[in-house]
Amino acid sequence: MANRQMGKQSIRFENPPIISGAASVVGEKEGQGPYGEYFDVIEKDPKVGADSWEEAEGKLQEKAAMLAIRHAKLTKKDIRYMVAGDLLGQLMASSFGLISMDIPLFGIYGACSTMGESLGIAAMIVDGGFAEHAIAITSSHFASAEKQFRFPLGYGNQRPKAATWTVTGSGAVVLTKSVRKEEMQQKGEWEEISKRAKEEKGKVKVKGITTGKIVDYGVKDSMNMGACMAPAAGEVIVQNFIDFGYQPEHYDKIITGDLGKVGKDIVIDYVKAKGYDITKQYMDCGIEIYGEEQNTQAGGSGCGCSAVMLAGYILKQLENGDWKRVLFVPTGALLSQVSFNEGNSVPGIAHGVILEKM
Amino acid sequence: MANRQMGKQSIRFENPPIISGAASVVGEKEGQGPYGEYFDVIEKDPKVGADSWEEAEGKLQEKAAMLAIRHAKLTKKDIRYMVAGDLLGQLMASSFGLISMDIPLFGIYGACSTMGESLGIAAMIVDGGFAEHAIAITSSHFASAEKQFRFPLGYGNQRPKAATWTVTGSGAVVLTKSVRKEEMQQKGEWEEISKRAKEEKGKVKVKGITTGKIVDYGVKDSMNMGACMAPAAGEVIVQNFIDFGYQPEHYDKIITGDLGKVGKDIVIDYVKAKGYDITKQYMDCGIEIYGEEQNTQAGGSGCGCSAVMLAGYILKQLENGDWKRVLFVPTGALLSQVSFNEGNSVPGIAHGVILEKM
Repeated sequence: MANRQMGKQSIRFENPPIISGAASVVGEKEGQGPYGEYFDVIEKDPKVGADSWEEAEGKLQEKAAMLAIRHAKLTKKDIRYMVAGDLLGQLMASSFGLISMDIPLFGIYGACSTMGESLGIAAMIVDGGFAEHAIAITSSHFASAEKQFRFPLGYGNQRPKAATWTVTGSGAVVLTKSVRKEEMQQKGEWEEISKRAKEEKGKVKVKGITTGKIVDYGVKDSMNMGACMAPAAGEVIVQNFIDFGYQPEHYDKIITGDLGKVGKDIVIDYVKAKGYDITKQYMDCGIEIYGEEQNTQAGGSGCGCSAVMLAGYILKQLENGDWKRVLFVPTGALLSQVSFNEGNSVPGIAHGVILEKM
Repeated sequence: MANRQMGKQSIRFENPPIISGAASVVGEKEGQGPYGEYFDVIEKDPKVGADSWEEAEGKLQEKAAMLAIRHAKLTKKDIRYMVAGDLLGQLMASSFGLISMDIPLFGIYGACSTMGESLGIAAMIVDGGFAEHAIAITSSHFASAEKQFRFPLGYGNQRPKAATWTVTGSGAVVLTKSVRKEEMQQKGEWEEISKRAKEEKGKVKVKGITTGKIVDYGVKDSMNMGACMAPAAGEVIVQNFIDFGYQPEHYDKIITGDLGKVGKDIVIDYVKAKGYDITKQYMDCGIEIYGEEQNTQAGGSGCGCSAVMLAGYILKQLENGDWKRVLFVPTGALLSQVSFNEGNSVPGIAHGVILEKM
């Protein structure tokens, strides 16, 4: 077995799993934004036909998962594992929304970095030979997140400039075992090799990951999560360069999850202080997802934000050949209403995923 | 690469990871129970020197993790990944308690089944060649759980007979790559083989896993979680028998996490209806951990319950040779205070882990 470990925190997959299908389901506001045309489904009903915000968010996950599996030309039965999470206490959206999937579940929580974490675990499962197909799913919902973390919607609190707007949406990505040429050649499976190679052509693969640590710079402002998360993103990006021996130019894009306008400046400065200039490659899903006129202050956030931008836009840019190599870095603020009320800081975490076209 | 997939939901590891170190840290009540002498540390201070219950629980995790690493004769730097979780919203105990570990983190949530989930993911990471060492950690705390899920402690509500008592404690287990004879023989590393073989002798390994699905039988009573979780445990146990072709007699013990006295009867009946009698092998950590006189109604619960019983007692029974093969099945009730208040049912999930002495 080849050594897959790179440097301190990274993995280079031996047989990089292929993204065989992806889907994005978003709310109306996200549909009205500049990326509206890229999303698969725009839900007009904020409750998605459910009775509560939490159930509504669960329905977004279920819809995204089913659609991603269909896009991969598979059925539920083909998927061996779900790796799923959301922002709610006890992962309410995943715990209830995914019951009908009837697939073994690993529930995960990495705040808004969850899509990076789920892709990382799912890719290890597939590359490690534990599954032919696994699905990574995350979601967030503006109303369930405001209820969980901030103020009742009816209270109509005023939002500071540094605040972000939680994205209503769910993204799901199916990872599939890539053709293992050596193994198949030994078995003389020539037809299968050429069939699979044809299917895989043009697909995006997960080439590697850089898994983040908890980073705490002592920021206590839950309305400025960009500042809490930016150092975690910076550390993971720099570690990715060190572990793989890359320069920023290796990537066409380096895309964080939801740092917003405040976090963007901090992460670029942080990485510059370590000797790397990512100004040209840098992009943030949170800044992109809403238009200036949509009045969302610092941008979008939530673990649905990077997930729908990945499934809806980023993967398509890679498939089209507009980009060849992307470092995708969902970013999370490890905040809870209890820890906030107890006066704790908001530590950050970020997980890097290297995406490349085959 | 050998096919590690067994049946529908199980994995048989190619090179079963070794449990190189484990540790259990519990509260005073658990220390006074029948297994008190087995736990590594009994904390007299329920706040563990912290200012809040959540921080206290985080400190339990930190202590258990550090001690398990020391027992494995390793240092923090040797551990490539932490796979950790707890019951609190946004995994407060792990998110804050593990900052000082400075190790890449996968945060996970499977309610009280979390120790089974973390062992499963950590074992795949190690067997897949992604790490030499990974640590699985979970915790619960009576006071933080009551605050999160039920009533303020000062309210002094009366507990029904079916209620369980959340265990204050954290268990941590270090998984280490086993000697890969074939690979090492090819490289001619004869000395290393004999050195490692000696170190591994008498250690317990993770032979396989059976990963659970969400199971919802519509039970809505948050004071009777045994009934919510028992069908999930039953499904995983039966699936383990089917996937591996085992009969109950294959195991010396089949140990669920925290079904308590009510759940015990249900799971035995459930499995019997599928054609297997596990009466002789069956044991439940929740029933065991407290004595009758400790007045804990149906028994202990929480994701610390199965974790401290594993690290404190079960692994020692295996190392001593009293038991040879154990199916360890932590059980979780997917409940949140919000979902409960919204009138939802309490779905269950359970994850099976096969433990054997080398």
